[in-house]
Amino acid sequence: MKQVVIIGLGLIGGSLALDLRRLFPEIEIVGTDHSDTNLQIAIDRKLIDRVAVEKDYQLADLTAVAIPVNETCRMLPTLLDNCGENTLVMDVGSTKSDICKAVKSHPRRGHFLASHPIAGTEFSGPTAAIHSLFRGKSQILCETESTRKDLLENVIRIFNQLGMRVLFMNPKDHDKHIAYVSHLSHISSFMLGKTVLEIEKNEKNIFDMAGSGFGSTVRLAKSSPAMWTPIFIQNKKNVLTALDEYILNLQEFRKMIADENSNGIFQDMQDTNHIREVLKGIYNEV
Amino acid sequence: MKQVVIIGLGLIGGSLALDLRRLFPEIEIVGTDHSDTNLQIAIDRKLIDRVAVEKDYQLADLTAVAIPVNETCRMLPTLLDNCGENTLVMDVGSTKSDICKAVKSHPRRGHFLASHPIAGTEFSGPTAAIHSLFRGKSQILCETESTRKDLLENVIRIFNQLGMRVLFMNPKDHDKHIAYVSHLSHISSFMLGKTVLEIEKNEKNIFDMAGSGFGSTVRLAKSSPAMWTPIFIQNKKNVLTALDEYILNLQEFRKMIADENSNGIFQDMQDTNHIREVLKGIYNEV
Repeated sequence: MKQVVIIGLGLIGGSLALDLRRLFPEIEIVGTDHSDTNLQIAIDRKLIDRVAVEKDYQLADLTAVAIPVNETCRMLPTLLDNCGENTLVMDVGSTKSDICKAVKSHPRRGHFLASHPIAGTEFSGPTAAIHSLFRGKSQILCETESTRKDLLENVIRIFNQLGMRVLFMNPKDHDKHIAYVSHLSHISSFMLGKTVLEIEKNEKNIFDMAGSGFGSTVRLAKSSPAMWTPIFIQNKKNVLTALDEYILNLQEFRKMIADENSNGIFQDMQDTNHIREVLKGIYNEV
Repeated sequence: MKQVVIIGLGLIGGSLALDLRRLFPEIEIVGTDHSDTNLQIAIDRKLIDRVAVEKDYQLADLTAVAIPVNETCRMLPTLLDNCGENTLVMDVGSTKSDICKAVKSHPRRGHFLASHPIAGTEFSGPTAAIHSLFRGKSQILCETESTRKDLLENVIRIFNQLGMRVLFMNPKDHDKHIAYVSHLSHISSFMLGKTVLEIEKNEKNIFDMAGSGFGSTVRLAKSSPAMWTPIFIQNKKNVLTALDEYILNLQEFRKMIADENSNGIFQDMQDTNHIREVLKGIYNEV
């Protein structure tokens, strides 16, 4: 690998730059960002060597697209039009169906790989980029049968070198499950933050009374609206289903509290405690 | 201080024992727990010196009640009946109105202090007890005007030595605000965990696809049902109000997604991002 283009130098794009540079000290990393300020920060932090120019898209071994999912859909066809004979164009978005659809019939579909690294923090922008963000994380790949085999094999080798666990899934399944384990968490957290901010106009009460539990449940409410708005809309069908089930569970729990149904409340929580074992499996928590 | 009785040797009672022993190496700490297993663990971990006997309640300088809030209400009158001339009986529950009411007209009301340390983790039982749990945390005291002045002053000195920030609040305000910043977080987390466990019968999907954000939002769903069931019921009125507002916000957000109202979704999330500054104030986060 000699040259990488990164489009969007935020948390994901920037962290990818940091790790690729560590793995391959000799490569040139160039990039773009819709924000000139972020672009300058990315240069100052040495995430990229310089701003990408036209011909870089031809020469790149890898073009990583790390921008909001609606913009990804819009930009991908042009990126494929302009990519080189040995360029792999890869997205990293949190939805996969619409993105795969956007390039489905593109004559150069073989140059594209749909990916979703399950990695991130609640922070955004190039200052949020961190080393080893991808180590130990899942990297979900979709419709790999449509990606040119040599390009796919090369990039999977890189994912392995980054310490990622590569998984294969179809876009439909990805979008359905990710609605539950990621998108719903973000909505629940944003709305919890909203509810508390609305009532606690005097923030001193939050300051005095909030424990670490509150911090944990509203952590995701710090996330980037620019990134999350198009995700919810692209994955609308699955997100609405997940949200409806969540609201229904809340309403049933509400009724049990109103009825002072101690046994029901206890049972519901005890059953859910099983999440301990599930999380233990994921994070090796104690 | 010479002797302390701790009733309930879980996360809070056990952690209190650890810190008091560090501060006052010479005191005797005795305790009880409804679970014989937990009692034995508490002795093995040296949280307590021995099991409390009848006369300890007379001799104790401090009797800390760290059991579910319904049992606290039930037990407090008897503890006051049997306490010594210089004993302070203190609860640490997450509700304050019912607990204060339970001893309001007790002839020895002056021996009681209603407290709520804003400290904890999602774990429970004596194995969850940790050192310095209370350092830097709020300790909310209610109706201190009804506590005997010398007993109150002594225990506040101890709270300060534990590194706590002592605050005064009336039980009604406490219960109202805590419903938002703590009780609602727990319900939102439990129901999120329930929703995901219901749909992801095959837990491999959670394992493969859940990121740290999911772990963060469902962390509180590991909490103890025995502790939380009576809290929700005792604080029913406030919890239902908070829950209704939360559900309403979720429904409005749902509608915006259904309508593909990007501007509305973006604005709602951007406004809620303000939680960053609020949390920064609490946890000194970056």
